[in-house]
Amino acid sequence: MKLFAADKLRQLGVEIFTAQGLAREKAEFLSGTLVEANLTGHDSHGVTYFAAYSNRIKNGHIDVNAEPEIVKETTNSALIDGHYAPGQVTAKHLIEVAVEKAKENVVSAIGAFNCNHIGRLGYYTNWAAQQGVVAMLFVNVGGPSVSVYHGMGKAFGTNPFSAAVPTGEAKPFLVDYATSMVAAGKLSVARAKEEKIPLHWVKDKDGKPTDDPRATREGGWLLPFGEHKGYCLQLLTELLGAVLTGSRVGPDPDRVPPSTNGVLAIALNPDAFVGLEALKQGTDEIIDYVKNIEPEPGERVLVPGEPEWESKEQRLRDGIPIPDSTWEQITKLCEELGIDPEL
Amino acid sequence: MKLFAADKLRQLGVEIFTAQGLAREKAEFLSGTLVEANLTGHDSHGVTYFAAYSNRIKNGHIDVNAEPEIVKETTNSALIDGHYAPGQVTAKHLIEVAVEKAKENVVSAIGAFNCNHIGRLGYYTNWAAQQGVVAMLFVNVGGPSVSVYHGMGKAFGTNPFSAAVPTGEAKPFLVDYATSMVAAGKLSVARAKEEKIPLHWVKDKDGKPTDDPRATREGGWLLPFGEHKGYCLQLLTELLGAVLTGSRVGPDPDRVPPSTNGVLAIALNPDAFVGLEALKQGTDEIIDYVKNIEPEPGERVLVPGEPEWESKEQRLRDGIPIPDSTWEQITKLCEELGIDPEL
Repeated sequence: MKLFAADKLRQLGVEIFTAQGLAREKAEFLSGTLVEANLTGHDSHGVTYFAAYSNRIKNGHIDVNAEPEIVKETTNSALIDGHYAPGQVTAKHLIEVAVEKAKENVVSAIGAFNCNHIGRLGYYTNWAAQQGVVAMLFVNVGGPSVSVYHGMGKAFGTNPFSAAVPTGEAKPFLVDYATSMVAAGKLSVARAKEEKIPLHWVKDKDGKPTDDPRATREGGWLLPFGEHKGYCLQLLTELLGAVLTGSRVGPDPDRVPPSTNGVLAIALNPDAFVGLEALKQGTDEIIDYVKNIEPEPGERVLVPGEPEWESKEQRLRDGIPIPDSTWEQITKLCEELGIDPEL
Repeated sequence: MKLFAADKLRQLGVEIFTAQGLAREKAEFLSGTLVEANLTGHDSHGVTYFAAYSNRIKNGHIDVNAEPEIVKETTNSALIDGHYAPGQVTAKHLIEVAVEKAKENVVSAIGAFNCNHIGRLGYYTNWAAQQGVVAMLFVNVGGPSVSVYHGMGKAFGTNPFSAAVPTGEAKPFLVDYATSMVAAGKLSVARAKEEKIPLHWVKDKDGKPTDDPRATREGGWLLPFGEHKGYCLQLLTELLGAVLTGSRVGPDPDRVPPSTNGVLAIALNPDAFVGLEALKQGTDEIIDYVKNIEPEPGERVLVPGEPEWESKEQRLRDGIPIPDSTWEQITKLCEELGIDPEL
């Protein structure tokens, strides 16, 4: 495990992706979102994708030359064909259009299909909230890994949901999570550290609760979070992210792995309601109220988004810890591309 | 416990509310939504409110003569002042405007404040889906009963969320739940039956898990569902339902109990995306896929909305069971109003 400065990793990502034909501006955005995931503590969505996306470029799953294209549009909606461009490029277009249309026409809904993995959802909703709009993302993910409530076997992907609301502090209220008990990345981390997991995350191939993070690789499955209530959100995300947008539903035999993301963004301009300043003030008041609640002994009461801001502050100061295995992958990739990993 | 035909209860509700000055058309809607809650199995939101709402009318919390009024409007948004009309009257207006604007302008967002208790959310989202639009409701509820994740004490109401998606069968995919482990009504039912509750629903006044449903009346509190993930939805619902709409946040000293509901509806016209027929077909396919998943031994895999449809079919056939104590309240109310409860 070594510590790296965010700027260095960001620059390295730009070199890696431009070397594979991605335009510099897009490479900067893509690399920036991955490093931001590390900064905010979501290592599962960070620079580990330098290598994974490079493989997808090599295999033709990601088309570095493709441009997302609006194929259907109204004053407050758009449907985007991602044309298998890097998912972040499509998602950037999607959230920019969502914010623009919400600013002009109060509320907007933008969908995307043929969209590669968009990375950490919170990046986009957080950005939208910083532009003064409320934003939500419903995303379907292929590669079944999660069962349905009371069902046997893998049925859906981790189908994440995200929402952000502006605050007075430029640190939006931010919800961003998989609708499974945990994101798949948390299991990888536990496997790498050879740690046990809580018994309510995963069932083994026989449907028995297990604390072994390897179980999902041996016929087991992740559970949806929150019993039937999280399961409802898991299905809603499939319907809004994929069915409504015309994206792939279930595994895609022609292109998996990796499968695409179906994405739906909804953006609300607070001017239609109390207005931005009142929304910010009211949100700040709720956050203050929550932060002043007495915590359970030995626990903290955190506000959605707070763990991310704390991690970012600390990692900007101390550097981002990168596991040796990830760094080895990156240096190997750099070698192949003729890039000096030490820049 | 006696069984009653839905029609009879509905008619009785109409008599009860018109006797207190509510216009017949509104009384029919109000009574209809309450009986529909019983039919769909949500007795906590059913005819038990004949007496509760009558008290609120008597105490001036519900104004039977008030009309909800749009105080801010664009082509795809509206903000409604409920003027303390019956909450169902305001919510009916809200969802009708949401559907109309979504049909005309693809996506809409409608908020309401000064809105009394709107009852079962699923009534409105389900209706919207039957009109061919996707609908979501975010509702804040006062009268704190639920803690925040890792916090001590009651912090927020049960802040429910609902979403519905059209299907081919006129039985929409329907999500409708409190963001607490269970709705407060489930505790009342357990108390009435003198039953224990699961240990992960409630904490007692000292923050210890308890199986005693009376604990929330003795300084204890309900927990948000799904650990930090349900907690995020609990806060999001407060922000969208109340802060964004300018509704009451936290307890309302002048008017509680009962406190108002802050309501935000979002409606999406599938024509902006794959279109209604493709959405219905795709949703049906997902439902079929889920229904064909092998259940865990001794369990069933249910689709969101299915328990409600099953209950409705059974109760339309066999009648709605009404506890003696509820029926006594209703007959007492009828006596006061000079109505024959046997009609």
